[in-house]
Amino acid sequence: MRPTLTAFECSPDRGQGLARDMRVRWALEELGQPYDVRPVSFAAMKQPPHLARSPFGQIPTYEAGDQVLFESGAIVLHLAERYPGLLPADADARMRAITWMFAALNTVEPPIVERSMAVLFERDQPWYAQRLEALDARVQQRLAQLAARLGDDPWLDGGFSAGDLLMVSVLLRLGSSGMVDAHPTLAAYVARATARPGYQRAFAAQLAAYERGRDGA
Amino acid sequence: MRPTLTAFECSPDRGQGLARDMRVRWALEELGQPYDVRPVSFAAMKQPPHLARSPFGQIPTYEAGDQVLFESGAIVLHLAERYPGLLPADADARMRAITWMFAALNTVEPPIVERSMAVLFERDQPWYAQRLEALDARVQQRLAQLAARLGDDPWLDGGFSAGDLLMVSVLLRLGSSGMVDAHPTLAAYVARATARPGYQRAFAAQLAAYERGRDGA
Repeated sequence: MRPTLTAFECSPDRGQGLARDMRVRWALEELGQPYDVRPVSFAAMKQPPHLARSPFGQIPTYEAGDQVLFESGAIVLHLAERYPGLLPADADARMRAITWMFAALNTVEPPIVERSMAVLFERDQPWYAQRLEALDARVQQRLAQLAARLGDDPWLDGGFSAGDLLMVSVLLRLGSSGMVDAHPTLAAYVARATARPGYQRAFAAQLAAYERGRDGA
Repeated sequence: MRPTLTAFECSPDRGQGLARDMRVRWALEELGQPYDVRPVSFAAMKQPPHLARSPFGQIPTYEAGDQVLFESGAIVLHLAERYPGLLPADADARMRAITWMFAALNTVEPPIVERSMAVLFERDQPWYAQRLEALDARVQQRLAQLAARLGDDPWLDGGFSAGDLLMVSVLLRLGSSGMVDAHPTLAAYVARATARPGYQRAFAAQLAAYERGRDGA
């Protein structure tokens, strides 16, 4: 059963790979599973057919026959449980990899998203400099803690896992801020992950989709 | 193997049950599993022994023999996979419940935490009123979407699950803001969940722990 994902018809990141469909595309590429993508416009995302799939009006969704899932983290976990390659076989190691998935999404991503939103929406406010300083400090604390745990290891816990996939996806949202580069081992971790053929294929696919959407094709 | 959790020695919420150990206590009570709690001071949370368990210096952690986990979402999932009661047996229904866990932690909780942090730390800033308005709007959108999906159902998808446990835990962080009460079906959902004996036992246990910590016992 070849699944269908939804993704932005025209991603606000201009194909930089920061939209959350990228995480699921990357997982599918790592696992060697083919998939289809149905683009959704911003207007359609708030309409009943899409809300039936995704109650919060987000992308991506995942449809395979009668099965409909939302939340990129849940979709990545589902795929990692179904096909070998993104979770260790040993039960304790598997659970540690899943722990890193939750850490990426519930501990590391929220302050990074908050910072991105301030950069986008508060840049012209008189309080921007003061707020950005506080937001940067929160992100920097998380990065320092992550770098301390990673040390000189290639991945967070043994081999590359769904935990690394989500953690790197989250770190990439810091883009050109230079905050990851302040930790050479974290910068190397991100470079190591994005050099993987699965990441490269997923990135190329979402960029091509953006270019088709932009051109109104 | 009776597990040991860590929790705040003296919770900043004064025993209101908002600290993240509450989620794990509640899951353990729903599943009928005994546990021990080791309180940790704020100073100890930032020291190497605790950071070895919890790289971001947070509570709760979960220790059972050689197994050490952090991230309350991951710990709840681990328990729900191990003991019957918080995840449906059917594979698709199980995955939908897990999807709600991710939705609670990655879509609904972040704007709620952000609002709480502004209330705590930006109350005296000249921009507070304007920021609070924007933060409230983000939370209200999520609550409206959640209420629309819940409708008149008792739980998010079939029977009470780990997804409801985390979603209600997240909604409780809105405390006395009145935002949940603006949606009577959501208020009833939270009341239904917190009336469960498992919630009541977990709440009483963390309140007693707070009172011991406060008294320096």
